[in-house]
Amino acid sequence: MNLRAPIHFYFDFSSPYSYIASEWVEAVAARHGRRVQWHAVLLGATFQAAELKPPMSYPIKRDYVLRDFERSARFAGLPYKQPECFPIATQNAARVFWWLDAQDPARAVAWAHAGLRAYFTRGVQLDDPVQLKALATESGIDAEAAEAAWQDPQWKERLKAVNEQAIASGVFGAPFFIVDGEPFWGNDRQAQIEQWLSAGPFKGL
Amino acid sequence: MNLRAPIHFYFDFSSPYSYIASEWVEAVAARHGRRVQWHAVLLGATFQAAELKPPMSYPIKRDYVLRDFERSARFAGLPYKQPECFPIATQNAARVFWWLDAQDPARAVAWAHAGLRAYFTRGVQLDDPVQLKALATESGIDAEAAEAAWQDPQWKERLKAVNEQAIASGVFGAPFFIVDGEPFWGNDRQAQIEQWLSAGPFKGL
Repeated sequence: MNLRAPIHFYFDFSSPYSYIASEWVEAVAARHGRRVQWHAVLLGATFQAAELKPPMSYPIKRDYVLRDFERSARFAGLPYKQPECFPIATQNAARVFWWLDAQDPARAVAWAHAGLRAYFTRGVQLDDPVQLKALATESGIDAEAAEAAWQDPQWKERLKAVNEQAIASGVFGAPFFIVDGEPFWGNDRQAQIEQWLSAGPFKGL
Repeated sequence: MNLRAPIHFYFDFSSPYSYIASEWVEAVAARHGRRVQWHAVLLGATFQAAELKPPMSYPIKRDYVLRDFERSARFAGLPYKQPECFPIATQNAARVFWWLDAQDPARAVAWAHAGLRAYFTRGVQLDDPVQLKALATESGIDAEAAEAAWQDPQWKERLKAVNEQAIASGVFGAPFFIVDGEPFWGNDRQAQIEQWLSAGPFKGL
């Protein structure tokens, strides 16, 4: 086990539990001398590969998860406002992430935070080019360059490749974490990840 | 809010996360001056009502959950051995639960523990009448009377009614908890339930 291996963190810009996890993953990693490698993915693609559907598509589950999104955010001490338009297409936000990542991973992480917070606390619709460009400007990113990036086949291909790699790694939802090869699915696996990082594999596993 | 209201705990004898939760729910309730009202249900019926399928039916998710069952049990400090035959039909075990519950709820809870532990640590197949009767005897229950109970239309009807009531209450999986009307789904909601019990609804909810 390489103690310096990063925590792989897979998220989708339209995933409430990804938003919550995005706010603690860096602190957890830092406490254990790790860094985080962020992966913007499209849940739609991973759901399709796994033949899964999002929880919102099940009427009975829908009411519960809408309640649980907000409750889980408050439990984590975070602001949360359920976006009226939900879920949304996030490929443009994700392509901007990968475009920034190629220049400077720290800027991509800052963009991830900006996008997740804007959508889940202010209802900024990341699927609307106008609102997405305004968010880029607000985040100190050249909005025209961002738009050119999300329309550029290079970043479309990059996102597609990232999704395929994620699916090949067993990712079927978000947030998803891989720590030293061990997969953890869900915001609610924080305590297990912490124990894994501090004590290694649980006895017998 | 009635502080003496019980924690409603819905479980299925074939649900690994129900087994894990069954081992902490009484302690959590006791810490907060509550009692637990146990409800043996059939996940198959709740899945069908919610148009859901069990995680094991999705190939990619299957590998993950098999790993997570065992990891989550070890994280909770519990023994766990993945049953080779999984999942299994649990209506007979559930009917015996409701038959005992009508006599003495404490005996029904003891049976729930016996069944969950037998299946998830020793692979005792609760869907096999011979093994189920042996488990009854081992648990100090008259095995012939238990068999008569699970074949009795009275307890078939009781289980059916309980399932319908659970579905009407919004239960769509197991373990499922309802605390003062607030629904919590999953073994991984333990911390939220504890906070809810100690501090009431999270600010703003």
